[in-house]
Amino acid sequence: MQFHLNGYQYGDPELSPASDHPAPTDKPPAEVDVLIVGCGPAGLTLAAQLSAFPDITTCIVDQRDGPLQLGHADGIACRSMEMFQGFGFRERLQKQAYWVNETTFWKPDDAKRENIVRSGRIQDVEDGLSDFPHVIMNQARVHDFYLEIMRKSSHRLEPHYSRRFAGLNIAAEGSHPVTVTLERIDEAHKGQTETVRAKYVVGCDGARSGVRQALGRELKGDFANQAWGVMDILAVTNFPDIRLKSLIQSANEGAIVLIPREGGYLVRIYVELDKVAKDKRVPNKEVTIDYLVDAARRILHPHTLDVKEVAWWSVYEVGQRLCDKFDDVKDGETKAPRVFIAGDACHTHSAKAGQGMNVSVQDTFNLGWKLAAVLRGQCAPDFLHTYSAERQAIAKNLIDFDKEWTQMLSKPLKSAEKPDGIEPAQIQAYFMQHGRYTAGVATVYKPSLLTGQSTHQHLAKGFEIGTRFHSGNVIRLGDGKPQRLGDVLLADGRWRLIAFCGRENPAAADAPIAQLCDWLENDAASPVKRYTAKGADIDSVFDVRAVFQQYHRDLDLEAMPAFLLPKKGRLGLRDYEKMFCPDLKTGPDIYDLRGIDRDRGCLLIVRPDQYVGHVLPFDGRKELAAYFDAFMKAS
Amino acid sequence: MQFHLNGYQYGDPELSPASDHPAPTDKPPAEVDVLIVGCGPAGLTLAAQLSAFPDITTCIVDQRDGPLQLGHADGIACRSMEMFQGFGFRERLQKQAYWVNETTFWKPDDAKRENIVRSGRIQDVEDGLSDFPHVIMNQARVHDFYLEIMRKSSHRLEPHYSRRFAGLNIAAEGSHPVTVTLERIDEAHKGQTETVRAKYVVGCDGARSGVRQALGRELKGDFANQAWGVMDILAVTNFPDIRLKSLIQSANEGAIVLIPREGGYLVRIYVELDKVAKDKRVPNKEVTIDYLVDAARRILHPHTLDVKEVAWWSVYEVGQRLCDKFDDVKDGETKAPRVFIAGDACHTHSAKAGQGMNVSVQDTFNLGWKLAAVLRGQCAPDFLHTYSAERQAIAKNLIDFDKEWTQMLSKPLKSAEKPDGIEPAQIQAYFMQHGRYTAGVATVYKPSLLTGQSTHQHLAKGFEIGTRFHSGNVIRLGDGKPQRLGDVLLADGRWRLIAFCGRENPAAADAPIAQLCDWLENDAASPVKRYTAKGADIDSVFDVRAVFQQYHRDLDLEAMPAFLLPKKGRLGLRDYEKMFCPDLKTGPDIYDLRGIDRDRGCLLIVRPDQYVGHVLPFDGRKELAAYFDAFMKAS
Repeated sequence: MQFHLNGYQYGDPELSPASDHPAPTDKPPAEVDVLIVGCGPAGLTLAAQLSAFPDITTCIVDQRDGPLQLGHADGIACRSMEMFQGFGFRERLQKQAYWVNETTFWKPDDAKRENIVRSGRIQDVEDGLSDFPHVIMNQARVHDFYLEIMRKSSHRLEPHYSRRFAGLNIAAEGSHPVTVTLERIDEAHKGQTETVRAKYVVGCDGARSGVRQALGRELKGDFANQAWGVMDILAVTNFPDIRLKSLIQSANEGAIVLIPREGGYLVRIYVELDKVAKDKRVPNKEVTIDYLVDAARRILHPHTLDVKEVAWWSVYEVGQRLCDKFDDVKDGETKAPRVFIAGDACHTHSAKAGQGMNVSVQDTFNLGWKLAAVLRGQCAPDFLHTYSAERQAIAKNLIDFDKEWTQMLSKPLKSAEKPDGIEPAQIQAYFMQHGRYTAGVATVYKPSLLTGQSTHQHLAKGFEIGTRFHSGNVIRLGDGKPQRLGDVLLADGRWRLIAFCGRENPAAADAPIAQLCDWLENDAASPVKRYTAKGADIDSVFDVRAVFQQYHRDLDLEAMPAFLLPKKGRLGLRDYEKMFCPDLKTGPDIYDLRGIDRDRGCLLIVRPDQYVGHVLPFDGRKELAAYFDAFMKAS
Repeated sequence: MQFHLNGYQYGDPELSPASDHPAPTDKPPAEVDVLIVGCGPAGLTLAAQLSAFPDITTCIVDQRDGPLQLGHADGIACRSMEMFQGFGFRERLQKQAYWVNETTFWKPDDAKRENIVRSGRIQDVEDGLSDFPHVIMNQARVHDFYLEIMRKSSHRLEPHYSRRFAGLNIAAEGSHPVTVTLERIDEAHKGQTETVRAKYVVGCDGARSGVRQALGRELKGDFANQAWGVMDILAVTNFPDIRLKSLIQSANEGAIVLIPREGGYLVRIYVELDKVAKDKRVPNKEVTIDYLVDAARRILHPHTLDVKEVAWWSVYEVGQRLCDKFDDVKDGETKAPRVFIAGDACHTHSAKAGQGMNVSVQDTFNLGWKLAAVLRGQCAPDFLHTYSAERQAIAKNLIDFDKEWTQMLSKPLKSAEKPDGIEPAQIQAYFMQHGRYTAGVATVYKPSLLTGQSTHQHLAKGFEIGTRFHSGNVIRLGDGKPQRLGDVLLADGRWRLIAFCGRENPAAADAPIAQLCDWLENDAASPVKRYTAKGADIDSVFDVRAVFQQYHRDLDLEAMPAFLLPKKGRLGLRDYEKMFCPDLKTGPDIYDLRGIDRDRGCLLIVRPDQYVGHVLPFDGRKELAAYFDAFMKAS
């Protein structure tokens, strides 16, 4: 679809000029399970996740006076799309977004150095890396989708705007030990304060995070080693790659990163200010939009750039900075955490790799289900230590990567005068080499409470323990529907146990799958038995799915274990969506695609945040029980 | 996604129990371009289509007191999905709907005649027939999507409920010659009448259409040759194909058609009442839900059927009936039509082939763009004769097909006692043979003002003139995006001229595409030149697209004709989405897929309702001009 033709327009592109969102004026609740500070991608991911649980109360506040409308982050990696699929808005986002299909590289023309020429053109995401494309979409639209989820939840959750975080106090005991003071900053209530008592508080309040400061934590690293100008513009140009992501390096005028945007007309251009030609450089504070446009025009030479409208522009300085720890537990302390920070509040870095929004939403997607599990009594509070442990390590990787990538892009280009400079081909090679990383699928959680050892990894080589579940196509047995197996991984806080069966006929009474189901359903050691509350649906904590090797028409549905056709809900209706067979039409079947041992099969533990917790032998009952016994509480 | 687990729930399945829609209480406008009577699929398709034009005013009224919530039609053929794609809600519908992947056939067990056994299982839609699946979704949800389009249009269009059509008068002249009287039937306004003067009136008011009666037209045919019971139920059963569309014929208890429904739990069962075993038959008026359930249970024997909740049920009698003409112009009259009827108002038939909603929405999709073209001055009013001419013929086909299919299903099964009966295999063969028809893609408009002769059909054998445009995969040149070419066919009232180029390099100054573009842009005989209003965007009436044979990376974007990078809108921004290249990753390229002459190329005229109007030689300037000159008015 196309939009922005007659100027940048906020909100749903299918909606003709819109009325304003009224800011809620009602007070936040006095007591709440979770208070989230900040309505950015991290905060809203968490709020949307928690709103899925009718028994958990959430409050989210923000300094702004309403939803974000413009600017800021826009890169959405494949991995984020997979998560959005779990939240249910991936289709709509994908339809509206710009797809990054190819990336081009431009360098000075050897024959005429003041001109640029294309030096490379590559596919942006390798085939098969994800079911979904790498896309670009204004972060404000992502917010809108989350707000819609919140609004449609049983809580009808809405943010409380125009509130500034003014401090917090953590009591040693009490049901809601964290007291947060909020200062109202809208004209009508200026100076008034409110207090909210929460069981948990999460600071998603950006690089200047008040929550982080209240914890006495700081971002360590280079404060501002790089200045960027960024502008979202509507322009007419004869630069042929204006609708392709392009890294452009001129000989003497600097470099830009050009990112086409959603709707077919808008484009974002990043200008690295430190690389602007020396004789034209001004202090960052004196940078104007005209300065940025002029710089971009010089770099794009000999192409024209006629800017018709500036939707948004900004100058910002960033460095690679990182917090030591993402919660309130100090070194040496053993208490369970009560306050967390996420997103830019605990890591900042350049925009060059398009990682900002993506790493932030993964932070709180990691935290959300854990908070829910503790609040719902499924896990003990000290389980929450795993959040900082897992995500701080990932943020460290990001900082390291960003430093390397930034340094590479900051080097002067090789030329007669600069024989030590970098070749454009080296930059392109590095970019390609790190494609899996920037797509967000290279994240690996190290062995821990939640991440198993690689003992049985050989049973399913393509489902690497500690990485996100890599989907494949299957046919649903009950109705013959072709689908992505990954689509079962909804953002609903449930664990998935996926039993990839061996070659045996699963309909046989003594088939391994029948034995596994019997054990899961009836054995006192079974996690399903131990950790599912009485009266709750059998799949409310552990959603067990089975994949068979047989052609789906060759299997007898009614001969399958009853556990895989569970009766659920008030009416005891049967769920027909637990069993799958290979899809033989769309490429290699999922066993071949993911290197699953066809003789022995395997049992996959997939976390509520879509990461592979463990790969176990099909009959690894003891290992399965031990995995969950390590952190779950019997119900 | 799954829903209905704890009982049938109206509306958006992502929304937890919802508040009621307030019925609009304001009066309809006194004057309007188009008045639509009836908020069924036909009426809402038309209202949604017309709401796309800011310069056309529409009013839609309905007897109900608010949006439909339950029951009625549910089958959505592939062709309707293609149309919904044009309206922009196909993704969401497809996500929420049940997909008819396979159809099974059940017959009496030869060994034990009181039991049924599966006699066949087939793929429901042949591969490659459409980009989209055949799905099942409560018609009420389809309404919701249309209402959302209307609500989001610049008109913020909402239906006026609780109005009964009470008569119309057609004056011989005047700007708004049709006066419609509406009777208010809500308690607060009972007995009050309102009048609306309209340029055009469309009766989409069902089989008992008041508009049809006001025109003195009648449905001719068998009034009620068949009675059906239908129920939407939540049930527990061990019938293994409960999640597959199934045609089930018992030896002596009758037949049912079983259609799984959206959400994973609901199922619709049609019971043919005339086939209920003679000794158990009751008059249709005495049929109860228990009677239907009992009949279904006997037919499904030896399987169980434990009904937990009945969401909706009904008994209805239908026959194959048809109106001679779908407008107010009597035989011999030459005046242009002012009043139209569509959907069930002009054709009724059985539900057996799942065609009802599909043919109805195609009726008004055919009418909508024509009304818009006349109202916007692009065509003369007598152009509207083509609506009845085209759609009445299609309805006639439907009636004929339905008679044949119904007769086949009504025949007794072959058995020892009934050697002349029908074999289940014959039914299955007939069903398969007519798969293209029931998918909605077999519609062919005969040669007429709008449908060209087959003179040049050989240039693109796969784009049959008079049938709907059959999409294929392409890569968009400007940004390398893989997409369906059919996705450009938005429901925006525009014509598409698709130039499939020959082998020549399109970047050459004298390439045939350059010459075509030059002619389209500048020649006095060019339809683009003649029929596009001054000051309007160059593609506002004719949206010209080009498809090349070259690999997209081998083409130089900036060397392409400027006409294919048109400057548009207030800011004169360039549109980069007019040019495409073959997609070499997803199967045969579009030239091979659709049998396009690679040497000569071709020029395709695609109507605003997605049908192929003509296939012309690439240089068929005269034929191209003549096609549009026959019915368009110079602007």
